[in-house]
Amino acid sequence: MQESFNIGLLIFPDLTPLDFVGPYEVFSRMKNSKVYVIAETKEPIPSERGLFILPDKSLEENLNLDLVLVPGGLGVNRLMENEKILNWLREKSKSSKYISSVCTGSLVLAAAGLLNGYKATTHWLSLDVLKLFPQIDVKEDRVIIDRDRITGGGVTAGIDFALQVVAEIQGQNAAEEIQLMIEYNPEPPFLSGHPKTANADLVSETRASKKKAQDLRKEIAARSIQRLSKS
Amino acid sequence: MQESFNIGLLIFPDLTPLDFVGPYEVFSRMKNSKVYVIAETKEPIPSERGLFILPDKSLEENLNLDLVLVPGGLGVNRLMENEKILNWLREKSKSSKYISSVCTGSLVLAAAGLLNGYKATTHWLSLDVLKLFPQIDVKEDRVIIDRDRITGGGVTAGIDFALQVVAEIQGQNAAEEIQLMIEYNPEPPFLSGHPKTANADLVSETRASKKKAQDLRKEIAARSIQRLSKS
Repeated sequence: MQESFNIGLLIFPDLTPLDFVGPYEVFSRMKNSKVYVIAETKEPIPSERGLFILPDKSLEENLNLDLVLVPGGLGVNRLMENEKILNWLREKSKSSKYISSVCTGSLVLAAAGLLNGYKATTHWLSLDVLKLFPQIDVKEDRVIIDRDRITGGGVTAGIDFALQVVAEIQGQNAAEEIQLMIEYNPEPPFLSGHPKTANADLVSETRASKKKAQDLRKEIAARSIQRLSKS
Repeated sequence: MQESFNIGLLIFPDLTPLDFVGPYEVFSRMKNSKVYVIAETKEPIPSERGLFILPDKSLEENLNLDLVLVPGGLGVNRLMENEKILNWLREKSKSSKYISSVCTGSLVLAAAGLLNGYKATTHWLSLDVLKLFPQIDVKEDRVIIDRDRITGGGVTAGIDFALQVVAEIQGQNAAEEIQLMIEYNPEPPFLSGHPKTANADLVSETRASKKKAQDLRKEIAARSIQRLSKS
């Protein structure tokens, strides 16, 4: 009997629920594996727009994890300066086979210094923020697997990400079986899912409406980079 | 100021979390709308593989809903014979603009008699079950909009479903904006997301492994049909 593959999904206030539930749905269907939903404490976690999710483990419980996943969301800003979370991720990176993220979760890994020397990606709107980190080779692909780091693009990329992770760990057949059961043959109704294909006006209006929030995120990244350079 | 569009997402024990969170992610980004997560009681709801979600409203709270959505999952079997839920859905169908489902949630709508005379779809593995209902015109498309009933295919179809619903209610621009922010330009890693494109052996093995569960579901559907014929 093969040893169980232990997956830890970190959740936190103001996460984007689909960043987390896309991979959760895929990973929870992996045979011979166990998925833990981990948060700083075991209190219910409010996501970005109000949905509450219950974690089943706290950071204190010293779990043996093969893969750690950090989803994204507005709450990433606070996580990037939360030394308890950053230290937990650094500690886990010493024993886990994979440290991974979906969407802006990669900014948390970056703030922990865990993407230095790696190729990585993030939500299209935060690529500029990730690029501020001088030691990260930022790519614009939907899923980037670089040795023991795996990063996905924005929100729905978590599904593609997780299926690729299953294929990486248990082989293509295992991933195909899960893809069939979650009926993942997407039919996006429009071409607007990426700035390269979306209407140009929509893209520039979206960038403009998010500029203030992204500028704040760049300031946080700048502080992270300064702290990393001193450590 | 346009009146708020009120959406009620029904959750229940043993639902498939992604069936619910895909649409939640899209709907919670709709402008001028409010999303309610509704369950029989306000206790935390355990999904199929253990993830707990907190509802924010109970069935008793008499909400004015424009759209009701029923996701799918193993728990659908119990819902199909839960008169409290079925009556709540029938009651809501009198005042809501749309009654909708993702995945096997359509079996619950069918058991409530709410798909009689409509085109509808479901998870590919349960198409046979939905076809037992003599007054439903079962289609195999990913999303079916038939007047005031909207049904989606399995699990991940909820994302396509919800974007189409947003376009239906608020127009294509509103849906395109949400699609851009959730970076929904899917890149499924394999062709296995539908029985028509998946490896034939995988499909027949999957059907065989689920036969017992599907036979049970057919028995439940037969009882529903009998009850509907008497009412």
